[in-house]
Amino acid sequence: MVAELISVGTELLMGNIVNTNAAYLSKELTAIGVSVYYQSTVGDNKERLKAAIETALQRADVIILSGGLGPTADDLTKETAAEALGKKMHLDERSMNRIREYFQRIHRKNITENNWKQAMIPEGATILDNHNGTAPGILMEEKGKTVILLPGPPNELKPMFEESVIPYLQKSNPKVLYSKMVKVCGIGESHAETMIKDLMDAQTNPTIAPYAKTGEVHFRVTAMADNEKAGKELVKPVVKELKRRFGDAVYTTKEEVTLEEKVVKILKKHGLTMVTAESCTGGMLASKLINVSGVSEVFKAGLVTYANEAKKQILGVRGKTLKKYGAVSQETAEEMMLGAVERYDADVAVSVTGIAGPDGGTPEKPVGLVYIGCYVCGEMAVYECHFTGTREKIRETTVIAALNLVRKMLLNLD
Amino acid sequence: MVAELISVGTELLMGNIVNTNAAYLSKELTAIGVSVYYQSTVGDNKERLKAAIETALQRADVIILSGGLGPTADDLTKETAAEALGKKMHLDERSMNRIREYFQRIHRKNITENNWKQAMIPEGATILDNHNGTAPGILMEEKGKTVILLPGPPNELKPMFEESVIPYLQKSNPKVLYSKMVKVCGIGESHAETMIKDLMDAQTNPTIAPYAKTGEVHFRVTAMADNEKAGKELVKPVVKELKRRFGDAVYTTKEEVTLEEKVVKILKKHGLTMVTAESCTGGMLASKLINVSGVSEVFKAGLVTYANEAKKQILGVRGKTLKKYGAVSQETAEEMMLGAVERYDADVAVSVTGIAGPDGGTPEKPVGLVYIGCYVCGEMAVYECHFTGTREKIRETTVIAALNLVRKMLLNLD
Repeated sequence: MVAELISVGTELLMGNIVNTNAAYLSKELTAIGVSVYYQSTVGDNKERLKAAIETALQRADVIILSGGLGPTADDLTKETAAEALGKKMHLDERSMNRIREYFQRIHRKNITENNWKQAMIPEGATILDNHNGTAPGILMEEKGKTVILLPGPPNELKPMFEESVIPYLQKSNPKVLYSKMVKVCGIGESHAETMIKDLMDAQTNPTIAPYAKTGEVHFRVTAMADNEKAGKELVKPVVKELKRRFGDAVYTTKEEVTLEEKVVKILKKHGLTMVTAESCTGGMLASKLINVSGVSEVFKAGLVTYANEAKKQILGVRGKTLKKYGAVSQETAEEMMLGAVERYDADVAVSVTGIAGPDGGTPEKPVGLVYIGCYVCGEMAVYECHFTGTREKIRETTVIAALNLVRKMLLNLD
Repeated sequence: MVAELISVGTELLMGNIVNTNAAYLSKELTAIGVSVYYQSTVGDNKERLKAAIETALQRADVIILSGGLGPTADDLTKETAAEALGKKMHLDERSMNRIREYFQRIHRKNITENNWKQAMIPEGATILDNHNGTAPGILMEEKGKTVILLPGPPNELKPMFEESVIPYLQKSNPKVLYSKMVKVCGIGESHAETMIKDLMDAQTNPTIAPYAKTGEVHFRVTAMADNEKAGKELVKPVVKELKRRFGDAVYTTKEEVTLEEKVVKILKKHGLTMVTAESCTGGMLASKLINVSGVSEVFKAGLVTYANEAKKQILGVRGKTLKKYGAVSQETAEEMMLGAVERYDADVAVSVTGIAGPDGGTPEKPVGLVYIGCYVCGEMAVYECHFTGTREKIRETTVIAALNLVRKMLLNLD
């Protein structure tokens, strides 16, 4: 099966946003064995959009459009796609109610007229529910072709694609794909790939695809087979070998499990409580942990002590330590960690202090220098790390490294 | 002048890399008044690439291809483009020498055969020097059309584009584009657009383009003119009118200024210090503020009190308040705010407590219910908000809302 992607939006043609949807959709489609030969991007312009759809209909089985489903005048993907397929539009009751409900939920009294535009549906179309916005997705079948319309915002497009589109496409693709994700943390991407180069070169079925994330590398092992059981059998030995090679750098083989979830899981298992003490990451570490639903039983508190005063007042870091060694030092990281443990009486504590830049670097303490303190039930260690990139990147990498370091110390409890 | 972009590379169609080149080139072209109507991406496949080039030649004046200029067998952009324009290839002496020099520079003795492929140039083509790699760029003019080939790696493409392509295009396109960004916060996208529908319907030059962000709507006002001064003149009255209609919901008209930067700027201007007390956002608010470089002079501390115990211990929230009204309540938000002010002695405090979901909602207190407390130099208010979406989305929207509410209270100081 061949799919073609059409991204709609003048903001893409003006370069105001990077087209991450195309990369996401392509990757997901490839993963379920659907080939993508063309991606194209057009603006909010009726005839150019229509031309793009007509071209796509000639060369692909499935056309996936994203963007231009909103309530405003320049959102014309739905009308144009319907026109290209020769379908009329009608006002859909159910969609109207969903929009009404949505506005009730967010306590907005006056629903502006243009919102009803989103309840106009092409005849015979299947509606794909949108749990994260008002614009429903659309799926139309016509003369052996399928045209799918998805909302542009990634946080609406992704859940809709995974919930409604993937199952639909898999039905029409008889073979099943079975995959496992081997998530590696603490090893650089190129190094990790070198460690399994022989496996990747030899791959046919299952395939091994690397995904570089900030501070992590994920390897998706995918097998195509007649049924799930056969797929499992094919994937199993490869996953086993990857785990053997990467050792405890592998924190999960479950697609849905994140590093922070893994840490929270281990904490719960041992009935431990945790606190965080952050300087340069400024709450990103706490925020990641708290994104794990139900974390409250293990996460006691997060202290964001960016200023030196706060380090003293909130964590009891000694003035002379800050004076002698500086805020970014092994000693300060250690006192932040111990202060957090003592004052907030936790079993586990992680402290972070570093220079995220762009300013503040010196020859002795360059931008990217970060100290991470980990305390686990009496065991403790302070790690010196050197990261690169923008301020944002350095902070994100630091958070991942901190989570991974505490995870590794927690493993010693088993 | 109309340009079209063709990105070449199977890795793009498999979603292994995000197409940042398309965004970069589009933005740069827009900035010099060249319109982009289509972007397309094709794999390393000769006939599909040729078809894409032929289509582009019919609808654009300038076709810019990126990628597929390298030494390997699947790099066939140059050959295919030359074929599409009916041009022969010949071995270019100068390019051969450049490649030889390049390998000397990087101290590589043996130049593999396939590298000479990069010295094959279409007849009559202009060579664009590549200072950051071996593959030269190519510029071909044929029957009033220009076809430009650039290397795929951004660190090679960008310098080449700025050094060779922009000057070439500007010669043939004297017009300039001038634009301002009106950033609106606290008004929903569809409502905001309804407020200026008449202006958007009437737009020709300048144009008004809306961009929805989480919790914000940005409007770019763009004018095409003979020079920057004339562009400014055209944009000015429109921006003025947008500001009049949206009032203090407009927090900036500068493209580069973010909401958190604006808040920090106001705090610095008045010499005020700030603390944050977060429950459901778990440090995201502090983290956003701390991403503003040099925030340390205003940001004192961030308290992440997710658990009730932490709310009591760290912020002095009373047990009976939590018992009687619950952790997610006007009263708790207020005590968190006041506790933060008193204990950490700040001029400004923002507290956040809410139900981010997916669990924990009740009919009285549904998922998405958030209380935001703002304290500014004695003035205080607690806002009840209702947000929707995933846990992540609700938390992100909450952070933006909190920043905007404190910004608005800070405006009263002027």
